[in-house]
Formats: sequence, structure tokens, C-alpha cells
Amino acid sequence: MATQGKVITCKAAVAYEANKPLVIEDVEVAPPQAGEVRVQILFTALCHTDAYTWSGKVLDPEGLFPCILGHEAAGIVESVGEGVTEVQPGDHVIPCYQAECKECKFCKSGKTNLCGKIRGATGFGVMMSDRKSRFSVRGTPIYHFMGTSTFSQYTVVHDVSVAKIDPKAPLEKVCLLGCGVPTGLGAVWNTAKVEVGSSVAIFGLGTVGLAVAEGAKAAAKRFGVTEFVNPKEHEKPIQQVLVEMTDGGVDYSFECIGNVSIMRAALECCHKGWGTSVIVGVAASGQEMATRPFQLVTGRVWKGTAFGGFKSRSQVPQLVDKYLKKEIKIDEYITHNLTLEEINKAFELLHGGDCLRCVLKV
Amino acid sequence: MATQGKVITCKAAVAYEANKPLVIEDVEVAPPQAGEVRVQILFTALCHTDAYTWSGKVLDPEGLFPCILGHEAAGIVESVGEGVTEVQPGDHVIPCYQAECKECKFCKSGKTNLCGKIRGATGFGVMMSDRKSRFSVRGTPIYHFMGTSTFSQYTVVHDVSVAKIDPKAPLEKVCLLGCGVPTGLGAVWNTAKVEVGSSVAIFGLGTVGLAVAEGAKAAAKRFGVTEFVNPKEHEKPIQQVLVEMTDGGVDYSFECIGNVSIMRAALECCHKGWGTSVIVGVAASGQEMATRPFQLVTGRVWKGTAFGGFKSRSQVPQLVDKYLKKEIKIDEYITHNLTLEEINKAFELLHGGDCLRCVLKV
Ligand SMILES: [Zn+2]
Ligand SMILES: [Zn+2]
Ligand SMILES: [Zn+2]
Ligand SMILES: [Zn+2]
Repeated sequence: MATQGKVITCKAAVAYEANKPLVIEDVEVAPPQAGEVRVQILFTALCHTDAYTWSGKVLDPEGLFPCILGHEAAGIVESVGEGVTEVQPGDHVIPCYQAECKECKFCKSGKTNLCGKIRGATGFGVMMSDRKSRFSVRGTPIYHFMGTSTFSQYTVVHDVSVAKIDPKAPLEKVCLLGCGVPTGLGAVWNTAKVEVGSSVAIFGLGTVGLAVAEGAKAAAKRFGVTEFVNPKEHEKPIQQVLVEMTDGGVDYSFECIGNVSIMRAALECCHKGWGTSVIVGVAASGQEMATRPFQLVTGRVWKGTAFGGFKSRSQVPQLVDKYLKKEIKIDEYITHNLTLEEINKAFELLHGGDCLRCVLKV
Repeated sequence: MATQGKVITCKAAVAYEANKPLVIEDVEVAPPQAGEVRVQILFTALCHTDAYTWSGKVLDPEGLFPCILGHEAAGIVESVGEGVTEVQPGDHVIPCYQAECKECKFCKSGKTNLCGKIRGATGFGVMMSDRKSRFSVRGTPIYHFMGTSTFSQYTVVHDVSVAKIDPKAPLEKVCLLGCGVPTGLGAVWNTAKVEVGSSVAIFGLGTVGLAVAEGAKAAAKRFGVTEFVNPKEHEKPIQQVLVEMTDGGVDYSFECIGNVSIMRAALECCHKGWGTSVIVGVAASGQEMATRPFQLVTGRVWKGTAFGGFKSRSQVPQLVDKYLKKEIKIDEYITHNLTLEEINKAFELLHGGDCLRCVLKV
């Protein structure tokens, strides 16, 4: 490749400050170092975590500015750094904010999809090898975000954070397998392990909540959503309404909003003795959820999920295959298509009510 | 039997008011109605839930006065009401505060040891058939407690609340299988399902906490407790101390105290990715536990247990057999032996530091 080993200057959407419009800039992207991969991003979607970080509500280092946001995308490997063996230039890939090194205590535990290897760097917006960013604008470094930074024509990620996928898959669709859709499907399949015939309550019907419904439908072999309940139409707390509607509560509930009061309602609408509630949404930092211990002592289980419990590099390619075999839906979540230049408009759409996913052509 | 079908007048310890000494009274115990069993209690132990209810901290109906407390006991069936087929006069039994009807939605679910059949009566201190008490003193009804009321020479319980046990078992020992010991063992075996080689943190080393240690020892085939950590000797929060001691946190933790701050510490000392915390202790009513949702989203699981997940009528007899085969310990928990007349002294002992279980000869 003509670009290999050289700095690439390309377009990227830079977030300079919380709540200020993103700026499309000429960004310099350094070549990948050892264990890194430079990826040409072709399509990226916007997820609520991007909007949320942009809003400045994140107090921990993950919300560092200036940065390049974006974590739900697909692209093609442009070049690889030293020692990278599992992907090569030309491979179609999905960047994964949950890494999978296959070597750390977490990866080897067989009990979780979390990976500890690069967290100490990605959590601070830098790369592992030299704790520096590969992005700069006119000499000023720009932080990475979630180890992915996909709102850029080129990005650099750790090799443990790219999933190599079938080149036949349409990148403008499968980019959604970088976050929301797997999160919802996996919450049902991996975290809750919903059985056939179970009753399920879903709080929040955005992309993740709808993917939960889709996952529950596949698990339960019947239509996903049978009833809608609007809390505003009831005087009683919603958990009480649901307990009454379902003769004692639901078998499983999923909180897909990130609201701590709703997390409580989601737990408390579960059936005594066995109901399991899974937290999928991300709460504002510093917020706490609460309940009476009696809720758990009487048999309810409270758990959570990150990326739906899927091991990213191993399982994202399998999800792509499932999509190609029409076993899972993706197209239905894409309500809007724009270009990277229109990203500020895309953020506005995300806050409106009729946008699930807006895919940007990069 | 000469007493069958007749009112029995016997000694019982009546709690007239919160925090006032119990009074040994001549109590009239009515004959068992349909589906009820009258049991001669020979030995009863005191449990913290008795002390706690007596202290008046319980706001819900379960703390009704005047009442006869006690729920960890063993005795012999004196007579049975109409339709009772599974026990008969002379059978050795352990009254069970967790019923097991084998017919209700809960019992048939295969997912819980809770039973819904008589809860609507026992929660209000009365019997199911006529919503009345079988106890009275000089014409005044005395409420039942937890469906057991074992601080009496005779008590009446529902037939779904008695476990028939091997008559060879020493009642002065196996009375402990009515509450604390099974709660701790079952928290490990049934609720957490601790595997060999797991690390375990136990908060609170009373009878239940020690039974957790014993259960973990049996599960892990090695000595139960290897390290003691005194939170007062550390400046950092105890969860942080434990996470550092165990390279990331424990695999399982058990809260056996009933303190909501410790419930939080018990969750947060669990390992990211898979740590499971089980609430065993009973908190003061109205208290709430809290944590950041991030704790669960990063893979920790929060659950609870009641009577250790054991199905009472089916499994208490099995625990008795395990004791007879020396597979579980009971004797070691009995630190004091007194008589029913000395019950107020026994309550004082329970609040001191060197009493695990005090068994009363009734
Ligand atoms: Zn996302
Ligand atoms: Zn790893
Ligand atoms: Zn007890
Ligand atoms: Zn039942």
C-alpha cells in the first residue's frame, strides 16, 4: 500500500468540548505501532453512548476532550503494525470496544466476555504501547474513545479489538454489530439465558431494547413484543402494574435506558422466587440504584451485561454469519442514512423520537 | 391419645410487647383443624430473627404482639387434623417456617424453595383455615409467628410446614436444622453453587456465617476459613482491602449480618466479570441497599437466599440424615443449653459475643 508506514491525513469529526458541535477536521493518523491495526472506516453508526459522552455527563477519564468519538462501525484494514498476525491489509473488520486478547485472566476464565488487557490504556484515550494517541490536528493530540474512534476515515485500534468478518457482508449494515444489536441479543441469550415460554419485560425500546425483543423472540420462538405499557397511563408504580398484569411478575426484565429508578422498577416487576433482571443501559456516572434487600432474599436476581456477554473477536464474525443467513435482523434498525459531514444532524436525529440508528457513510 | 381433640394447657413464653421480657404463661393450645398438626416441642433454639422481631424493629405484620416466637425447633407430633396424611402422632418432626405444599406455582416451578400456599395467613400470625390463632391466654388470642411458634410446649402448624425426620436423630441437636445451619449451607450449595477452588468472603461469623464457611469447605474440599479481616484495622473501605488481597476480588461473597452497607461491600468485593454476592442476612425493615449499576454491568451478580434454597419438607429430612452420617456439623454451633423458663437469659446470651446457638429444653 502506498500509505503503509506513513501518516495519513483524512477527515474526522472531532469533539473539542462537551455539547459543542463536532468539527470535521483534517486529522493526521499515525501508522500503527506493534500490536496495532489501522482501519479505513467505511460506515459508522451513532450510539447513545457517543451522545452521552459528547454531552459531558461522563466524569471519569473516558470522557476526555478533545476526542474522536464513535464505536459502532465497519471498515477495511489499511495496514498493520509489527507482530499482528490475525488480520492483514484488505480484511473486512468491525472494531470492537470490548477487546478479546484470549490470554488474560478474564479471557481465560470462561465466565465473562470482559478483557483486561488494554483497558488501562483505552480508558484513558491512548494506545497501550506508548500511552499516546495516534490522532493529531495541527500537532495537537486528539484522544481516542472506547478504543475505537470510528468517526474518522481512518482509525488505529489494538489488534485485540478487531473482529475479522466475512467480506461478503454489507459493511453499511453490519456496522451495527459493533454495539447495540449484539448488546440486546446477548443480554437475552448469554446473560439472562431466557427459556422458551418465559415472560419478559423490556424497559426502553431503542435499538438495544428492540434487539432484546428480537432475541427473546428467537429464544421463545414467538413474536417478541406482545404488550406495551405506558407508565404515564397508570397511577401506580409501573412495577406494581406489571406484577398484576403477569400474575406475580415477569420471569425476566431488561433495563435498556440507563435510568436508576427504572432499574429498580425492572427488578421489582420480576416474579418472586426466580425473576431475573438484567441491566443493559448505562447510567449517568455517580448515580446509584437501590432496592430493599427483601427483593433479592425472596429469590430475584440482579445482574448486568456489557456487549451482551459476547466475546468480541470470536463471536462478532458469527453474528455477521447469522445476519447473512437471515437468522438475525439488522436492516430494520437503520432508520436514517447520512454522511460523516452531516454528523451533527445525526446527533440531533438521535435525540428525536423516530431515529433508531443513523448510519454515516464515511 | 388422651389429649387428642382437646385443648391442651401448657407452658409457653409469650412476647406481650416489643423489648419487654417474655412471660412464661399457661397457654391454651386448641386442637389442630383440617390440614393442621399439633406438635409437642421438645427443644428449641433462639435465632436472631426472634430477637429482632422481639426488639420491635419489624414494621410489617410479621411483628404482631402478643405472640409466641421461635422457629428453630424439633418435637413430636401429638395429633393431626382432618385430611393430614403425611405425618401421624408420634412422628419426629422439625417445624419449617418455609412451607412446601408441592402444589402451588412456586413449589411446582422447580426454580425456588419458596411456597405461596399459607403465606397469606402465617404472615399475619394466624392459621389458614379460619384466619384465627390456636393460642390463647385467659381467653385472649396470642398470635403465631413465622408459622412455627416454637417457644411453647405445644404448637399448631400447617401440615405443609412440618418435616418428618428419622426418629433416631437427637432432637436436642437437629432442632438447629430449622433455620440457621441450612440457611448457611444452602446459600453455598443451592444459591451460589460454589465450585471447587473458588475464593469466598463471608461477612458475619455467627451461626449462619459459620455454616456458609462449612458449606464452602464441603464444596471446596478444604478448610473453610483461611483469613480473617477486621474492617476496623483498615482505613480503606473493606471492599477495597479484599479486592487487593485477592487480586481483583473474590468469586463469591455472603452477607450474613443484615446490614445494608455491608451488603454493598459484599457485592463490591466480588471479582469483576463473574463475582456473585448472596444476601443471607435480614435487614431492618424499610432499609435499602444501593450500589452503582456499573458494578453489575461489569459482570457481578447480586442475589439472595431464604432458608438456603432448601425445600423444607423434602430436604430437611435429608439434612438430618447427613448429620447422622457425620457429613454436616451441628453440635459445634451449640454453645449454651438452658430451659424454656430461662428464655430471657438466653436472649441476653444471644446479644453477647460468645453465643452461637442456645438450645432450650422445653
Ligand atoms: Zn454503543
Ligand atoms: Zn483478555
Ligand atoms: Zn432463624
Ligand atoms: Zn407451595
